[in-house]
Amino acid sequence: MRTTAAVAIQAGKPLEIMEVNLDGPKAGEVLVEMKATGICHTDEFTLSGADPEGLFPAILGHEGAGVVVEIGEGVTSLEVGDHVIPLYTPECRTCEYCLNPKTNLCQRVRATQGKGLMPDGTSRFSMLDGTPILHYMGCSTFANHSVVPEIALAKVRKDAPFDKICYIGCGVTTGIGAVINTAKVEIGSTAIVFGLGGIGLNVIQGLRLAGADRILGVDLNPSKVEMATRFGMTDFVNPSEVDGDIVSYLVNLTGGGADYTFDATGNVDVMRQALESAHKGWGESIIIGVAPAGAEISTRPFQLVTGRVWRGTAFGGARGRTDVPKIVDWYMDGKIEIDPMITHTMPLSEINKGFDLMHAGKSIRSVVLY
Amino acid sequence: MRTTAAVAIQAGKPLEIMEVNLDGPKAGEVLVEMKATGICHTDEFTLSGADPEGLFPAILGHEGAGVVVEIGEGVTSLEVGDHVIPLYTPECRTCEYCLNPKTNLCQRVRATQGKGLMPDGTSRFSMLDGTPILHYMGCSTFANHSVVPEIALAKVRKDAPFDKICYIGCGVTTGIGAVINTAKVEIGSTAIVFGLGGIGLNVIQGLRLAGADRILGVDLNPSKVEMATRFGMTDFVNPSEVDGDIVSYLVNLTGGGADYTFDATGNVDVMRQALESAHKGWGESIIIGVAPAGAEISTRPFQLVTGRVWRGTAFGGARGRTDVPKIVDWYMDGKIEIDPMITHTMPLSEINKGFDLMHAGKSIRSVVLY
Ligand SMILES: NC(=O)c1ccc[n+]([C@@H]2O[C@H](COP(=O)([O-])OP(=O)(O)OC[C@H]3O[C@@H](n4cnc5c(N)ncnc54)[C@H](O)[C@@H]3O)[C@@H](O)[C@H]2O)c1
Ligand SMILES: NC(=O)c1ccc[n+]([C@@H]2O[C@H](COP(=O)([O-])OP(=O)(O)OC[C@H]3O[C@@H](n4cnc5c(N)ncnc54)[C@H](O)[C@@H]3O)[C@@H](O)[C@H]2O)c1
Repeated sequence: MRTTAAVAIQAGKPLEIMEVNLDGPKAGEVLVEMKATGICHTDEFTLSGADPEGLFPAILGHEGAGVVVEIGEGVTSLEVGDHVIPLYTPECRTCEYCLNPKTNLCQRVRATQGKGLMPDGTSRFSMLDGTPILHYMGCSTFANHSVVPEIALAKVRKDAPFDKICYIGCGVTTGIGAVINTAKVEIGSTAIVFGLGGIGLNVIQGLRLAGADRILGVDLNPSKVEMATRFGMTDFVNPSEVDGDIVSYLVNLTGGGADYTFDATGNVDVMRQALESAHKGWGESIIIGVAPAGAEISTRPFQLVTGRVWRGTAFGGARGRTDVPKIVDWYMDGKIEIDPMITHTMPLSEINKGFDLMHAGKSIRSVVLY
Repeated sequence: MRTTAAVAIQAGKPLEIMEVNLDGPKAGEVLVEMKATGICHTDEFTLSGADPEGLFPAILGHEGAGVVVEIGEGVTSLEVGDHVIPLYTPECRTCEYCLNPKTNLCQRVRATQGKGLMPDGTSRFSMLDGTPILHYMGCSTFANHSVVPEIALAKVRKDAPFDKICYIGCGVTTGIGAVINTAKVEIGSTAIVFGLGGIGLNVIQGLRLAGADRILGVDLNPSKVEMATRFGMTDFVNPSEVDGDIVSYLVNLTGGGADYTFDATGNVDVMRQALESAHKGWGESIIIGVAPAGAEISTRPFQLVTGRVWRGTAFGGARGRTDVPKIVDWYMDGKIEIDPMITHTMPLSEINKGFDLMHAGKSIRSVVLY
């Protein structure tokens, strides 16, 4: 079949909207008609050329929602008409990782996914002249139709709006999951969130959901305050307005440091600040941000010997097929909010505007509506 | 009263054996007659001058065992004749830290202890000419008698031999506790221990006690193999005999990395190797070693984002008054071994020989017998 896609032809160039060929689903695969997709920093990271593992030409996008239109041989958990969210972290429920309750990093299709291919080692997408186009993170949601492995699709309720729940495919789950799955924040905790963007805001609402008492937000951009406050932030700190060392300032402000701190900036210096502003004895710091290639985090080992814990999280520690439908329920039940974070929408033909808004720091989330 | 002590007059000089004045215990303090004391790397770290917080003159030593000879006003948990192990990490059971189940770092007397003083801000030791001598880590076990806060004494059974259980005052508890309190190693785990000295051997026996399946030991010194094997090591790796990258080698050898890794070297490069040879998704790395002043640990944040956890441990996460008596029981019941690790004994007059043996890498533990 043919479908319309925004193709990343090469690093550093805008996406090109074009008709592409799409082969039908093979065994264990599913054809999805995308209804909406968010534009996330990870797409931008790859498109910019900064991602050392970026491959081109490819169809980017990994924050989508859509409808099953065809199932491949052997697919049993989904049927035509089901509403789904593609998962860049799949959940096969049979590999060594899925069977270990400590991790969500299903490895079933990792090797091929990393190469931009479906599990059989080939691509379903090609240009009209036959040139293959690579998949991206196993999702490729910047196409009106995409083929996705069955184990990488979360089945969700049909009354949930695609243009909002697509965000659960990455940002919402990453932020909320970092709090509830990775940090396992307890009621009454004090927490600091560094970076109040599309991820940090979801960390904040995760903290509110978990019953944190104090939720401090740290950002260089004061325009983030209003939205962060709306999502549960209790105190705002702008490091550029703090005299002296930001770590000492935060340790003082929290009476010894926070129980939990989160980096949602991707800056390795901020990751260190986050670790060191965690409370001696028990504070845990969670890295969510993705750092530039080659960048390293550092600290004195004494920080850990005196009881701080340094962790990271991918996709918020969520097991997608199990957890994503629950988060969709939370949204539908009003336990969490998504609508105010979707600041811009556009058709696929204007997807490059979404990247422009991100660069300008004007959007929290831009969503493409098919 | 007067007692005999090995006094650290200044950094980098041998200890001087001399008669000193010792004031009796004040409120909340206890006079202990020391019966034995181990010589640990931390004493050597301070004596060498490398410890930026080292103060002189002082009576070092923090790995002792002895008998209560006098109690100060208000002391209720101990009486004359009790056998005790001094605790450099006390357990008051009332401070914010003691009341938080996530930490053992009681802060009750921290400020004064760090200055070499008793909780009232003064020292009990002085030279015969009246010059004050500082306490060390709240213990000062290199003196035949010492005054110690009540909250820094673990009461232990009277049939346990002082010359062995003194080692529980630091090394044994640090190593075993790192496994059972900090890492909480599960039965069937795979673990790697970097450094097979006085701490590493106790990590190994802690792992055996916890039911680990594979216990890999890593050391540059092959003479450590025999003892480590005796304590439970199943595989030995000498990094100087590995071609190429030690981390890849260990990850291969363990089928993807270890569930738990421990640094017991104090070398920050080894700490990084330990973190990176932990298993993707769930491996945890525990720093026990104390690094040189100013040294920093580093890694790519991706190591944590993909599921590794970086922790540290002080005194093996043990709450001394509660846990040390249990470890003494384990020793008396034959659940753990201590005797083979005590490779040398000497009278206080020959304590400097103990430091020489440590420098030469010839001893696991030297114990001074009073
Ligand atoms: N681990 C995961 O699974 C995962 C998933 C999605 C995104 N991410 C990463 O999370 C990070 C955040 O993504 P986002 O979409 O929220 O980005 P964003 O650009 O919307 O937000 C980043 C925020 O950090 C603030 N900031 C930048 N430098 C700062 C500093 N030095 N101190 C304080 N604040 C600072 C910015 O002002 C901005 O508000 C990115 O690195 C992204 O790649 C990780
Ligand atoms: N965290 C705590 O509460 C605590 C308590 C006591 C001691 N410590 C620290 O634990 C560390 C170990 O103490 P110890 O008494 O066992 O010391 P040790 O000297 O007896 O043992 C260290 C071992 O590490 C080996 N080693 C050195 N460099 C190595 C390398 N690059 N690769 C592999 N092996 C290497 C040595 O050959 C030696 O066998 C020290 O740093 C000490 O200060 C920490």
